[in-house]
Amino acid sequence: MSHYTAPIRDMQFVMRELAGLDEVAKLPGCEEVSPDLVDAILDEANKFASEVLAPLNRTGDQEGAKWDNGKVTTAPGWRDAYKQFTEAGWTAVACEPEFGGQGLPKLIATAVMEMWKAANMAFSLCPMLTNGAIEAITLSGTDEQKAAYLPKMVSGEWTGTMNLTEPQAGSDLAAVRTRAEPQGDGTYRIFGQKIFITYGEHDMTDNIVHLVLARLPDAPEGVKGISLFVVPKFLLNADGTPGARNDVHCVSIEHKLGIHASPTCVLAFGDNGGAIGTLVGEPNRGLEYMFIMMNEARFAVGMEGVALAERAYQHALAYAKDRIQGTEMGVRGGPKVSIIRHPDVRRMLMSMKSQTEAMRALAYVVAAANDAAHRSADAAVRAENQAFVDLMIPVVKGWSTENSIDVASTGVQVHGGMGFIEETGAAQHLRDARITTIYEGTTAIQANDLIGRKIAREGGVTVKALAAEMRGVLAQLAEQQGDAFVAIRKSLESGIAALESAVEYIVATYGKDIKAASVGSVPFLKLLGIVSGGWLMARAALVSARRLAEGSDDEFYKTKLVTARFYADHILSQAPGLSYAVVNGAAGALELDEAQF
Amino acid sequence: MSHYTAPIRDMQFVMRELAGLDEVAKLPGCEEVSPDLVDAILDEANKFASEVLAPLNRTGDQEGAKWDNGKVTTAPGWRDAYKQFTEAGWTAVACEPEFGGQGLPKLIATAVMEMWKAANMAFSLCPMLTNGAIEAITLSGTDEQKAAYLPKMVSGEWTGTMNLTEPQAGSDLAAVRTRAEPQGDGTYRIFGQKIFITYGEHDMTDNIVHLVLARLPDAPEGVKGISLFVVPKFLLNADGTPGARNDVHCVSIEHKLGIHASPTCVLAFGDNGGAIGTLVGEPNRGLEYMFIMMNEARFAVGMEGVALAERAYQHALAYAKDRIQGTEMGVRGGPKVSIIRHPDVRRMLMSMKSQTEAMRALAYVVAAANDAAHRSADAAVRAENQAFVDLMIPVVKGWSTENSIDVASTGVQVHGGMGFIEETGAAQHLRDARITTIYEGTTAIQANDLIGRKIAREGGVTVKALAAEMRGVLAQLAEQQGDAFVAIRKSLESGIAALESAVEYIVATYGKDIKAASVGSVPFLKLLGIVSGGWLMARAALVSARRLAEGSDDEFYKTKLVTARFYADHILSQAPGLSYAVVNGAAGALELDEAQF
Repeated sequence: MSHYTAPIRDMQFVMRELAGLDEVAKLPGCEEVSPDLVDAILDEANKFASEVLAPLNRTGDQEGAKWDNGKVTTAPGWRDAYKQFTEAGWTAVACEPEFGGQGLPKLIATAVMEMWKAANMAFSLCPMLTNGAIEAITLSGTDEQKAAYLPKMVSGEWTGTMNLTEPQAGSDLAAVRTRAEPQGDGTYRIFGQKIFITYGEHDMTDNIVHLVLARLPDAPEGVKGISLFVVPKFLLNADGTPGARNDVHCVSIEHKLGIHASPTCVLAFGDNGGAIGTLVGEPNRGLEYMFIMMNEARFAVGMEGVALAERAYQHALAYAKDRIQGTEMGVRGGPKVSIIRHPDVRRMLMSMKSQTEAMRALAYVVAAANDAAHRSADAAVRAENQAFVDLMIPVVKGWSTENSIDVASTGVQVHGGMGFIEETGAAQHLRDARITTIYEGTTAIQANDLIGRKIAREGGVTVKALAAEMRGVLAQLAEQQGDAFVAIRKSLESGIAALESAVEYIVATYGKDIKAASVGSVPFLKLLGIVSGGWLMARAALVSARRLAEGSDDEFYKTKLVTARFYADHILSQAPGLSYAVVNGAAGALELDEAQF
Repeated sequence: MSHYTAPIRDMQFVMRELAGLDEVAKLPGCEEVSPDLVDAILDEANKFASEVLAPLNRTGDQEGAKWDNGKVTTAPGWRDAYKQFTEAGWTAVACEPEFGGQGLPKLIATAVMEMWKAANMAFSLCPMLTNGAIEAITLSGTDEQKAAYLPKMVSGEWTGTMNLTEPQAGSDLAAVRTRAEPQGDGTYRIFGQKIFITYGEHDMTDNIVHLVLARLPDAPEGVKGISLFVVPKFLLNADGTPGARNDVHCVSIEHKLGIHASPTCVLAFGDNGGAIGTLVGEPNRGLEYMFIMMNEARFAVGMEGVALAERAYQHALAYAKDRIQGTEMGVRGGPKVSIIRHPDVRRMLMSMKSQTEAMRALAYVVAAANDAAHRSADAAVRAENQAFVDLMIPVVKGWSTENSIDVASTGVQVHGGMGFIEETGAAQHLRDARITTIYEGTTAIQANDLIGRKIAREGGVTVKALAAEMRGVLAQLAEQQGDAFVAIRKSLESGIAALESAVEYIVATYGKDIKAASVGSVPFLKLLGIVSGGWLMARAALVSARRLAEGSDDEFYKTKLVTARFYADHILSQAPGLSYAVVNGAAGALELDEAQF
């Protein structure tokens, strides 16, 4: 049985010392954010995550969601947990106060979200998708739509979904075929089939609000002809309560490798005359609106990477401390020891721990920048932060999720043979993590976005500014005493250089040979993640050294210093190899004809 | 539905051009090995693998082996497939002719084994474990034991198992508690519980021959007090037929992440008075004998890595050629294309393909060395080859299996959302692969063996000789024209240098700080694997260039050249980063106290 307790100390450290919680608290609309408030929120969220959600994680995996004749029954305990979740107000954390939200900064909401995802990823997907739908209606909906849906969705009384994918159109939204026929009364009849719809049907709420991409009759081909519609499961009565059943039905749910308790639905729209929906925003701009939701969702999936890595680490750590096997290395005939004393188990745990902390640091720093980008009174500050956020969302998404698979797999390895036995629970983290590099845009799609829209299009301005900022940390590292700082500086310096030469290559190549640049896109995304993580771990080491020099005897700072050093030696040191593959790897990847494979 | 066809062309290439099949055919006892014979064997094995075993792979995963009241029922089709397998003589390929075996070289047996494992890993475990048991009895059994068991096991009429692990003793065999009480009549009564016993019980044969580690009453503590026993499921009548049921029973089978069709049994010995067994070899030397079996088994598990990577690659390749999505990158409004045309899908496929070919090359080269080590008339040749085999078995096991997890995971990624759906079958390869880095000794155990017994103990003589041999290839590469050879030479040169500095570190450190050396053991194992693979891919490129220069127009050679170059640019280029972690990574990994985690 795997327990979960939120790593509140590290969360607090990252929020305060790396992400600038104090600065976030000074932003317009964040006046009520105080250290006490943050403490209270994190403590309450931790209680809910560890006491209510975490215990359902394994049973949810075993029981799964069940489909029968169009109805989906969630796993045992799910309905009750969801009810408690809404009653405690957790659905409203980051939402606009106008519709009942608490309007908390994204930085705080991110820490809270990490807890839900670590405690029970399959559960967390429901509020996550609802948040995406809330975001889209908030930004692009009519006043009527906002009034009809947002209060119920913010309170969690109704949930929301995102309906993009169709069987013939996975990542390629230009191929969407679902159609919407105007009825002349402001409503539309929707016809088509959507697949991979998370919580597309369930038994936890009285209504479900589907946001659906579809084409109008006169729409242009491709991505410029897609519109966004709201299609509720139950049409609304004049008083706003759920009325007649709409013509959207769950045809089946998928049998998946992981997140068994999250129903992944095939939804049929319009098999009986058409599902009634209303247009969100302007015609043919659906993809634009969906991208707004997707950016939020991509960041949230990145947090799944952080969260699953944390959960897998806690699971493996508990086992490694508990499991007695073998004697201390180099000590013949000595007493049996717990396996955490074996150097390779130690290496695996440090690898899991250091990568998880680096990913958390990056995600929270991006969340804080998102707050500044949305709330700062200074337009230049907003723009600068938005550019950083835009650059980093594909990295938070792609790098954290790719790592989470490795970290969860390492967690299985720490357990030895027991890791392969499902009852142990370690394998579930790996199975659950395996979707995170695929949905909300595969790693390749994140990487294309990164090197194209976020780097090449602006000649690498933002990423070069980031590298320059990282170089500023090198000087501070040089002022510190001790082997650890020598090691950190050495790896960070070569990591930054590796990043810079890869950026040069991408900027120089993208315009003239997009395929050659794209071969390096995923290695580049990982490179940027690794080096950014190294930069933040170095900053964390500097803060820790300062606190210790000020007389603190806090074990947390000592541990953070060692962890930062491990990261530099074992993880950041892989940066030059990735850069080499980015800069040199195109020819060998592209040369073969299809027939030669 | 995933099909499998053995990559016979690459197998033949590796056997002939890299592993020296012609030299193997000149060894004593291999006189009958001819090109025609090899072709015929590979073709027949391919037929059996693709037509009989591969179709059962998915259904075996879905149905699994079932336990009921001590009996294990194998998945549908298993019994019949096993019967066909034995009738065709496949169990006897590598066994001694004296007991009915075909006595074929290990090089050929290895190619055949790859097919079983790629077609149906869960099935292949049964003959694999039987082979290990045959090996142990052949080497250490009495003439009576040999006569009683070997002919039936070589023919496949009975299967064999290896019983090492106990609940309190996973990797730590010193902790084995199962005891053997001498009965005064040459037999022993065995009492204890063994776990993780592959095919410890099943319904495919009339008898099962368990090889069991247990302690005699007067045995010393630890690993020097373990003896090996033969304990058949049914005791033998005077005429050698199965008689009375022995007191060994399957108490349960495990619910595992993968290889569902391979029953992983908990076996209780002696719950009803004692299971009757006979001693193999001398008392207290059981571990020694078991290690002989384990070396075979470790190599075979390494082949699972190669095989699963090949299967996952074939699966992903078929999907990538078939799945139409998106337009050609850089071509707006062009026709939809199959996803193999997208650069990142291409990169993933090349990564899977190049690593699989490199792993196959290394494994077959080791298999050929094994033949020379066992059969050469020249003692010096035998010794030199044995040293190479001893060095490389942990690498074949550890590196190939670690890679197979990554390759299978990449295979899921190539499938996008469909990869996460169990019906697709891609996820099964990942689930199946996940055990391979654990059983028959975890990667850490392989790595400890590698840096300790295989390198430090002899001051790195064998591995240094290997590096020197690799350097010989650099000169040949320098004589070739073209970018590909420049790229290959550059990466191989820095890879060899990275390997050499890591070897220096291991040799210098192991004796004075075993923990510091051991932190680097797994990264070192991967480094040696990557560089060895790069060396063999470089040799493959040289052969291919020569054939093309001679006028061949064979696409295989052109493809191999490109694949070798990809490997150099993307895989071999990671070697310096691994070496850095080996040489610099100890302090950060070891510094924390347990309590600081």
